[in-house]
Amino acid sequence: MLLQLYRSVVVGLPQAIRVKSTPLRLCVQACSTNDSLKPQHPSLDFSDDNSRTRGWKVMGSLLGLGAVLAYHEHQCRASQESPRMYSKEDVRSHNNPETGVWVTLGSEVFDVTKFVELHPGGPSKLMLAAGGPLEPFWSLYAFHNQPHVRELLTEYKIGELNPEDSTPPSLEASDPYAADPMRHPALRINSQRPFNAEPPPELLTESYITPNPIFFTRNHLPVPNLDPETYRLHVVGAPEGQSLSLSLDDLRKFPKHEVTVTLQCAGNRRSEMSKVKEVKGLEWRTGAISTARWAGARLCDVLAQAGHRVCETEAHVCFEGLDSDPTGTAYGASIPLARAMDPEAEVLLAYEMNGQPLPRDHGFPVRVVVPGVVGARHVKWLGRVSVESEESYSHWQRRDYKGFSPSVDWDTVDFDLAPSIQELPIQSAITQPQDGAIVESGEVTIRGYAWSGGGRAVIRVDVSLDGGLTWQEAELEGEEQQPRKAWAWRIWQLKAQVSEEQKELNIICKAVDDSYNVQPDTVAPIWNLRGVLSNAWHRVHVQVVP
Amino acid sequence: MLLQLYRSVVVGLPQAIRVKSTPLRLCVQACSTNDSLKPQHPSLDFSDDNSRTRGWKVMGSLLGLGAVLAYHEHQCRASQESPRMYSKEDVRSHNNPETGVWVTLGSEVFDVTKFVELHPGGPSKLMLAAGGPLEPFWSLYAFHNQPHVRELLTEYKIGELNPEDSTPPSLEASDPYAADPMRHPALRINSQRPFNAEPPPELLTESYITPNPIFFTRNHLPVPNLDPETYRLHVVGAPEGQSLSLSLDDLRKFPKHEVTVTLQCAGNRRSEMSKVKEVKGLEWRTGAISTARWAGARLCDVLAQAGHRVCETEAHVCFEGLDSDPTGTAYGASIPLARAMDPEAEVLLAYEMNGQPLPRDHGFPVRVVVPGVVGARHVKWLGRVSVESEESYSHWQRRDYKGFSPSVDWDTVDFDLAPSIQELPIQSAITQPQDGAIVESGEVTIRGYAWSGGGRAVIRVDVSLDGGLTWQEAELEGEEQQPRKAWAWRIWQLKAQVSEEQKELNIICKAVDDSYNVQPDTVAPIWNLRGVLSNAWHRVHVQVVP
Repeated sequence: MLLQLYRSVVVGLPQAIRVKSTPLRLCVQACSTNDSLKPQHPSLDFSDDNSRTRGWKVMGSLLGLGAVLAYHEHQCRASQESPRMYSKEDVRSHNNPETGVWVTLGSEVFDVTKFVELHPGGPSKLMLAAGGPLEPFWSLYAFHNQPHVRELLTEYKIGELNPEDSTPPSLEASDPYAADPMRHPALRINSQRPFNAEPPPELLTESYITPNPIFFTRNHLPVPNLDPETYRLHVVGAPEGQSLSLSLDDLRKFPKHEVTVTLQCAGNRRSEMSKVKEVKGLEWRTGAISTARWAGARLCDVLAQAGHRVCETEAHVCFEGLDSDPTGTAYGASIPLARAMDPEAEVLLAYEMNGQPLPRDHGFPVRVVVPGVVGARHVKWLGRVSVESEESYSHWQRRDYKGFSPSVDWDTVDFDLAPSIQELPIQSAITQPQDGAIVESGEVTIRGYAWSGGGRAVIRVDVSLDGGLTWQEAELEGEEQQPRKAWAWRIWQLKAQVSEEQKELNIICKAVDDSYNVQPDTVAPIWNLRGVLSNAWHRVHVQVVP
Repeated sequence: MLLQLYRSVVVGLPQAIRVKSTPLRLCVQACSTNDSLKPQHPSLDFSDDNSRTRGWKVMGSLLGLGAVLAYHEHQCRASQESPRMYSKEDVRSHNNPETGVWVTLGSEVFDVTKFVELHPGGPSKLMLAAGGPLEPFWSLYAFHNQPHVRELLTEYKIGELNPEDSTPPSLEASDPYAADPMRHPALRINSQRPFNAEPPPELLTESYITPNPIFFTRNHLPVPNLDPETYRLHVVGAPEGQSLSLSLDDLRKFPKHEVTVTLQCAGNRRSEMSKVKEVKGLEWRTGAISTARWAGARLCDVLAQAGHRVCETEAHVCFEGLDSDPTGTAYGASIPLARAMDPEAEVLLAYEMNGQPLPRDHGFPVRVVVPGVVGARHVKWLGRVSVESEESYSHWQRRDYKGFSPSVDWDTVDFDLAPSIQELPIQSAITQPQDGAIVESGEVTIRGYAWSGGGRAVIRVDVSLDGGLTWQEAELEGEEQQPRKAWAWRIWQLKAQVSEEQKELNIICKAVDDSYNVQPDTVAPIWNLRGVLSNAWHRVHVQVVP
């Protein structure tokens, strides 16, 4: 097991080096829990980095001659000096098999190095918590909260946390992001200010519904701190209608509509595009996509109350958020009125996410949810709705979130020539195994997600283990999709037989939707200067060991 | 000019050889005019073959040592022995530059060999008529019917047709296809019985609306000979409604609705798929797609009159044609009720095509037109409409017109596992220049079509001249497309600068629709045993001469 992890780190080296030059610089050291978590222990608020920076650090120590010695030293200390007091920094530095794997629960510290391989959910899941608290993960996967699990953990206890390490970090008042909520430590942060982060692949397809704390977060501005008591949504009325100023309670009086919807950022998988040629944008990997059960008022009902009807001419529903930059400019976007007014399109003014009030990072108290449409139109912290003859004049509607030919660069781009992204194309990605991993021959499980925009159902996912020469069909899991309203993704899985002779696998996935649209083979021909719409076949290279 | 044509034939050799092994064997020698033509001359009804078989024949003679001599002999005969009487066979044998290019108009015979290069519409268009009558082409492109054109033609007159050659060919009464209509000689025939043919690329993108006589024809069975006076459409009523038996006049009493719609066969471009591996199906090239202005009653209006409503559960509208095989089984297909009942989906029971009654080959007197949906659901010679809880049990709904993974073969295929094709994916193809052509350096015009299913608009066509390394955007011609109702194609064009140094061009086109779906790079990964849904990048290789 240790040998495997060692190999995995070494194989991952080129990637770790590349990642180092990406916006990971923007990561702060102190990630914190999501406000939607119910913290039960004071030690929830610290973790340090994600598995990739971890790999980077490990590499550093492995390159030194003293790596093996250092590991033995840690092992000895852990076994000889238990139980005693540790700092969070002590725990944080034990985050890989070479240093030992420590975790905390409440104020207790555990050395679970020898348990990693025995973890029923797989070593990689436990490793997400390495060097930090277990609570954020146990709150996601509540079956851990059982007496026999706690008892098992006791065997690995090596000491206690210093009492002063329970103090939450102080926030700087002058920082516009100072009031941003706590976040879950499992999130892979692409940018801290504004906060942008994605769930790690191991967790992304663990469940059909993405738990709120690890739902990918795409913020363009600081998170506003809104009081639900004084919150009002302003809906501009039609000429013959009347404008509305709706409190949260007013909104709840409309018929409550629930729908399971996958949101995807236009920049999902941008990191693959930036390998072809530099692009402007956050280095999203495969995780800028998540699925939740949303509930709220239907936009068509609210618009109808304000006197709006579908008109013959093309019109647009413009949304404005209550988040704003230092000049007071709010986030904004629009969708066609025809979609907004179509009850079958199920556009929501959502106030619930997976049965809970919206978390602050996801638009508390009200956001737009536009099934089948790019995340950028699901305006959060919604403040204003109006019907206009033209699209929103927001930067994010007119000067961003558009696709261009690979031949267009920043000198030649004319944003007016391309339509704003609304429905997204067919997409799929592999979440297991990960690129650079080492797998054992025999039965290898390949897992991932597939989704298409516009309510188009995923009808098939083809998986290749040989770089695209031959294909096998994956099994689609989860709920059957409703025709024309396939708003949520399909998780898929393939159990493939891999012989000992195969030294490596070039794994590819590609999905087909019910319009029989397919993903393009390669990234370069769909490259565009903003790195959006990255939906080429997803490729993962792994090594096979007997 | 002759040198160029000679080169073009030689370059085209590998293709000609390939084509020889395709269903072209099924072609009969006597193609005839479409019944929707208004014949003005008795000599309309004969032509022989298409340009590819012509290339094949030319190649045969070029391989012989006497090719150049033979050409001179023909030239001398043509000039010395004018005017005199010729048979149609004489004319037919003069269908290429080596034998000389003869055409007829009425009873007159012309040797236009020297005019081919001077033809204002380009040599390739005139060559479509080589060895046969001009009328079918002049009736399509009526500007030819002017005194100065006729005067010009007189210069090339070499004689008259034998009077007996005006007699139309006799039809065998025992042949179930004996009553099939006359067809236009420009059509490239893929199968004579049932009749399946496509317009040549030169004509396909000549106009936004495809003229009826060259609209691609996809028949599964003999063409029924229906009497418009006794024709009845049977519409099965809802449980609380009433069944209808509608005459053509009854149908005309519903509000008349007109819409321009592109129809595409699921097998369009199958010939490219069969180069990867054998498939079952007609060898369609790029022409199994055409566009017309259709008029008729809206299906939703007719269904409503029979008492049908959109129901909560999934239901299907089943169509049955009046064409049938020897066992009496009719062609059939179905579409979801939700689409049929949506006025915005504009599904028609059409009785007019480009302002004329439907031609017999296109469903006279009534066919279904389902905008944005595969041709197979546009049932012709419509006899019966019913609403069912399941899809049509027709062979063509359940055992054909479905897509599969490349890994599925005839031993493993399970037609129940794939959804029937309804909306089609994004598609585009190059119609000019053609594969194997020789182009002159300088400004080269590249032309083609692009279309997507489901009403999704074409937003961009990228063209590469270097096999996909760099791309240029083509100009989209014709009518702007209505959002969500982009039922008709876009013709596109790019005028590219090609230097003398470039010896060859690897031209590619790929289109993008407004859901930002793109075409896949290559054919093999979308290969399927029926050869449907062939929408990879279209590739054309040409040679460049100074």
